[in-house]
Amino acid sequence: MTAELISVGTELLLGNIVNTNAAYLSKKLAEIGVSVYYQTTVGDNKKRLKEAISLALSRSDVIILSGGLGPTADDLTKETAAEVLGRKLYLDERTMEQIREYFARIHRENVTENNWKQAMIPESAIILENHNGTAPGIIMEENKKSLILLPGPPNELEPMFEESVLPYLQKNEKKVLYSRMVKICGIGESNAETMVKDLMEQQVNPTIAPYAKTGEVHFRVTAMADNKEAGKKLVLPVVEELKERFGAGVYTTKEQVTLEQKLVKMLKKLKFTMVTAESCTGGMIAARMINVPGVSEVFHAGLVTYENRAKKEILGVSKKTLKKYGAVSRETAEEMVIGAAERCEADVAVSVTGIAGPDGGTKEKPVGLVYIGCYVCGEVEVYECHFTGTREKIRENTVVTSLNLIRLKLLEYM
Amino acid sequence: MTAELISVGTELLLGNIVNTNAAYLSKKLAEIGVSVYYQTTVGDNKKRLKEAISLALSRSDVIILSGGLGPTADDLTKETAAEVLGRKLYLDERTMEQIREYFARIHRENVTENNWKQAMIPESAIILENHNGTAPGIIMEENKKSLILLPGPPNELEPMFEESVLPYLQKNEKKVLYSRMVKICGIGESNAETMVKDLMEQQVNPTIAPYAKTGEVHFRVTAMADNKEAGKKLVLPVVEELKERFGAGVYTTKEQVTLEQKLVKMLKKLKFTMVTAESCTGGMIAARMINVPGVSEVFHAGLVTYENRAKKEILGVSKKTLKKYGAVSRETAEEMVIGAAERCEADVAVSVTGIAGPDGGTKEKPVGLVYIGCYVCGEVEVYECHFTGTREKIRENTVVTSLNLIRLKLLEYM
Repeated sequence: MTAELISVGTELLLGNIVNTNAAYLSKKLAEIGVSVYYQTTVGDNKKRLKEAISLALSRSDVIILSGGLGPTADDLTKETAAEVLGRKLYLDERTMEQIREYFARIHRENVTENNWKQAMIPESAIILENHNGTAPGIIMEENKKSLILLPGPPNELEPMFEESVLPYLQKNEKKVLYSRMVKICGIGESNAETMVKDLMEQQVNPTIAPYAKTGEVHFRVTAMADNKEAGKKLVLPVVEELKERFGAGVYTTKEQVTLEQKLVKMLKKLKFTMVTAESCTGGMIAARMINVPGVSEVFHAGLVTYENRAKKEILGVSKKTLKKYGAVSRETAEEMVIGAAERCEADVAVSVTGIAGPDGGTKEKPVGLVYIGCYVCGEVEVYECHFTGTREKIRENTVVTSLNLIRLKLLEYM
Repeated sequence: MTAELISVGTELLLGNIVNTNAAYLSKKLAEIGVSVYYQTTVGDNKKRLKEAISLALSRSDVIILSGGLGPTADDLTKETAAEVLGRKLYLDERTMEQIREYFARIHRENVTENNWKQAMIPESAIILENHNGTAPGIIMEENKKSLILLPGPPNELEPMFEESVLPYLQKNEKKVLYSRMVKICGIGESNAETMVKDLMEQQVNPTIAPYAKTGEVHFRVTAMADNKEAGKKLVLPVVEELKERFGAGVYTTKEQVTLEQKLVKMLKKLKFTMVTAESCTGGMIAARMINVPGVSEVFHAGLVTYENRAKKEILGVSKKTLKKYGAVSRETAEEMVIGAAERCEADVAVSVTGIAGPDGGTKEKPVGLVYIGCYVCGEVEVYECHFTGTREKIRENTVVTSLNLIRLKLLEYM
């Protein structure tokens, strides 16, 4: 089955927004084995939209359109798609009711006249309920092809895709896809790929696909099988092999689990509290930690000491150390992490001091040099890291590496 | 002049990366008055790429292809585009030399055989130098149409576009575009648009286009004129009118200046130092401040007190206040901001405590309730804010609002 995406919206052609819907839909379709051959973006223009739909119908099995289902006169996707297929629109009572209910739920009382435009449905279409807005999704089938219309806002499109479109696309599919994610931290992308190159080349079912993220590499292992159990049997041995090869580098094999979630889970299990002392990352590690709901149980405080005086006064780094070794040094990182742990009476602490650039680098201390101090129950270790890239990239890499170093230390206590 | 974009890369069709190049190029083209009617994405597939190029040549004046200029056998953009136009490739000595120089600069000694593929150039093409990689850009002209080939990585594509493609596209353009940005904070998007609706509808040259960002609204005022001076004369009165209408809400009229940069500039001018005390934003305000190079002069420290004990011990919030009013309260925000300012001996402090959700809300204190405390030279004010949206959105809005409240306070001291 081949699919093609058409994104509708002048704001995309003006570059005012980035087309994340195309990436989302493509990824989801790839996961169920549907090949996307084209993504097209057109504006809110009837003629060009009509041409795009006709061209897509001539070459793809499934065409997913997103955007242009709103209540204004600019929104033409539904009307144009119906016209291409020669279908009339009718006012659907059930959809009207749902729009009314939706407005009641968000405490908006007056449904304006143009909202009823959204209850106009093409003949013999499948209607997809929208729980997060007023535009229903629509599926029209014609000559074994499917034209699927989805609302543009990602918070409406994504749940509708998961709830209605995925089951629709998979209803005739006798095979199922089963996949697991192996998430690795602390090993560079090309290194990681080299370590499993033989597996990636051998494997046909399951397949192994790498995804790189800053400081992390994720491998998705996917099998096509008759049922979930059979899929699992194909996937799990490969997951085990990857775990064997990457060892402690693997922090999870669950799709939804992030590095900070894993760390928080470990801290909770150990009943440890953690504190951060950040210089060049200026609060980014703390902000990452509190992404995890319920983190307050183990993460009480973060200290951002961007300037030398703050390092002295808040963390108790000695004047002598700062003078002799400088703010970016192994010694300062060590005193920062001990100071943070002691002052906050925490079991675990991480400190960061480095040169994120673009300025401030010297021959001895180049841009990208970062010292990361790790403190766990009185034991301290300081790591010297060299990162490359932009200021942003260096800081992001520092955040991920810090979280991972603490994770590795905690493994010894589990 | 109409343009069309073709992005080449299977990784886009798999949804592994988001197509930011299309948004970047569209925005840049819109700024010089070039209309983009289509964006198409195809994979590394000769047949489909060929069809996409032929279709684009039949309907647009300028076609910009990005991606697929790498050294591997997968990279087919140049070869395919040359084939469509019936041009042969030759090995270009000058380009070879540049590739050699590039490798020397990044201390990579061995140029591998397949790198010379990147020095193969179609006949009678314009070569665009790549200062950030090895793939040169290429322009081929045919029947008054231009086919422009750019490398896929944004850090290569963007500088090449600015340095070479923009001047190329504007060379026959006798008119120039002059634009200014009016950046506003603290006024909602629809409110802001209503306040200047009459202007936006009246204006033809210059035009006024709004861009919404979390917590901010930017208006771009753009005029087409014979020269820069004439453009300025058209634009500046409209900028003045916007400043008049939005008053202190306008924080800058410069494209590059961010809210945090503006704030840092004001602090430097006043010789004030600032400290942050964050709960629900957990370090995000501090991280935003240190985005500004040279901020250490005015921003010394940030305190993240996510848990009650930390609020007590680090900021000196009283046990009684926490017990009587709760962590999310006007009283706690006040004690947090005073504690932070006094303990760090800062002139300015901001504190944040709120419920970012998704859980933790009650009828009295719903998700989205945030108290922001502002301290300037001993004077304290606490603001009660109600934000909507996801945890992420609520936190981002809190960050922007905090920075803006401090900016507004500082205006009184300027």
